[in-house]
Amino acid sequence: MAQTTPNHTQTVSGWAAHDQSGKIVPYTFKRRQNGADDITIKILYCGICHTDLHYIKNDWGLTMYPVVPGHEIVGIVTKVGNNVTKFKVGDRAGVGCLAATCLKCEYCKEGHENYCDEVQFVYNGIFWNGSITYGGYSEFLVYVVRVSDNLPMDAAAPLLCAGITVYSPLKDNNLLETRGKRVGIVGLGGLGHIAVKFAKAFDHHSKKRSLDFILDIVSAQHSLGAILELLKVNGTLVIVGAPDKPIDLPSFPLIFGKRVVKGSIIGSIEETQDMMDVCRKHNITCDIEIVSTNRINEALNRLAKNDVKYRFVIDIAGFSSKL
Amino acid sequence: MAQTTPNHTQTVSGWAAHDQSGKIVPYTFKRRQNGADDITIKILYCGICHTDLHYIKNDWGLTMYPVVPGHEIVGIVTKVGNNVTKFKVGDRAGVGCLAATCLKCEYCKEGHENYCDEVQFVYNGIFWNGSITYGGYSEFLVYVVRVSDNLPMDAAAPLLCAGITVYSPLKDNNLLETRGKRVGIVGLGGLGHIAVKFAKAFDHHSKKRSLDFILDIVSAQHSLGAILELLKVNGTLVIVGAPDKPIDLPSFPLIFGKRVVKGSIIGSIEETQDMMDVCRKHNITCDIEIVSTNRINEALNRLAKNDVKYRFVIDIAGFSSKL
Repeated sequence: MAQTTPNHTQTVSGWAAHDQSGKIVPYTFKRRQNGADDITIKILYCGICHTDLHYIKNDWGLTMYPVVPGHEIVGIVTKVGNNVTKFKVGDRAGVGCLAATCLKCEYCKEGHENYCDEVQFVYNGIFWNGSITYGGYSEFLVYVVRVSDNLPMDAAAPLLCAGITVYSPLKDNNLLETRGKRVGIVGLGGLGHIAVKFAKAFDHHSKKRSLDFILDIVSAQHSLGAILELLKVNGTLVIVGAPDKPIDLPSFPLIFGKRVVKGSIIGSIEETQDMMDVCRKHNITCDIEIVSTNRINEALNRLAKNDVKYRFVIDIAGFSSKL
Repeated sequence: MAQTTPNHTQTVSGWAAHDQSGKIVPYTFKRRQNGADDITIKILYCGICHTDLHYIKNDWGLTMYPVVPGHEIVGIVTKVGNNVTKFKVGDRAGVGCLAATCLKCEYCKEGHENYCDEVQFVYNGIFWNGSITYGGYSEFLVYVVRVSDNLPMDAAAPLLCAGITVYSPLKDNNLLETRGKRVGIVGLGGLGHIAVKFAKAFDHHSKKRSLDFILDIVSAQHSLGAILELLKVNGTLVIVGAPDKPIDLPSFPLIFGKRVVKGSIIGSIEETQDMMDVCRKHNITCDIEIVSTNRINEALNRLAKNDVKYRFVIDIAGFSSKL
């Protein structure tokens, strides 16, 4: 049984990796009681993000085993604390990467809490009370943003990570306010295909001219040379991938083109809610392949070979037809 | 005798490299007549930039031999064309890296001609008329910005490249308009020590807190990891160095800190003139070591070993006391 604290009294069935072998097995652990400010959701669907694979295999040397992955989580509210006003039992809700931030620093106060120094993620994090966080490969979870009624729950799950990760830099670089920019997306996977949908929804294109903006989603080691050359002078390349080895940044296309390379990671809770509303308005969801809970390992193996279009989503509650 | 064109009738004595051995030898070539829009200067001093060494040794595979290096050039106006209104014979003038740009594109029109696609540099460039450009390791040159009267000519020479290269990104990132920012300079050489003087003149500092801005001048291959970690969230790192191999850009400090890496190369003519005025006002010059023309190779060898504080300047006209 995993590390726990006195108020962790709710027993949860989930799926965890116990070592670098990369195999996921059933795992029972405890979550905290639903407190006055908490919301508990019964998880219906959880997307499989490439980051899950990195944590499962300890590619970054950061994993605290056993790890219950999953940060693209949607479900139905089953409990609300006394102080909760925005949600009621039965509401559709989602959980992304963030589990806790300090709430006091300038980034938290300005609504950029995803850049808080003390950020803790929804799994493999350490919560305020010292407990380890466990993710969405599990029955239920305490926490949330609202999932709009007209979005399918399964195809909305990946929006909580894949969606917000591409939405935030597009917004931050004014691509949701302007139209007709020349936008490129490098890496057409789980994140990339959603980025294309956002870019299209906001009337951007990628004609054969130098580009104003490129979003680089590639999570393998690569060189930025050829990508930078596609940008106009002063154009911006945003990196959201996290290869374990450094990316090659050649100086010449950077300095001769006065180009800009920025990093971005997920987005804030407020941005995530904004994104959900944008997705509802423009009918944007993720292209998914549903997998049952007994086929998680198979999905992980196929994901490692990029054999998915474009995102696996685990049918945690068994709501979808048997596959 | 080098490639030339019919109006190249002025004979010039200079110093050129003829192959990758890195040795500079006396060399006679032709420059064009002074046209209606031209200014000719008698060169007094020329700084030795690390870029000269790269071109002399063909480190970047771009060198057209024989190459007459030198793009930190100051001198006295000896001829002005009929259309010239801003300079008269006897004026102090300087020449930096730029020899020609298209004058028609958006960057030329907006005063950012250093980012023009057709930019040609003051040496190893190909001019409009097909002739090769030859730099400031030579007696005179046709072209210019004004060097303020109260700046010493020798210590002002490196401002034309080293100075403008660090001035432009400081200006571009609003560090000449604001005060009291936390600014770091990586690479304390010919460019770096001038950057420190600019930063100090504008009341910036580098106390032991996370930095708002870092200027990275290192021209050798290096990793940006430790440098990025010094920046605050959303902080900016500007790269002006041009290592021949790619720089290592680790993704984690980039994305977790939403940090920005920008390139910048020299500056426009207008910015160069602005910089000269700022240098006059704040009494900023380069710390130099004067070398006579018969000691250029010795200086180049010492430069290759970073044995100079902080810039060699060639006493082209023999005005300084014999060394």
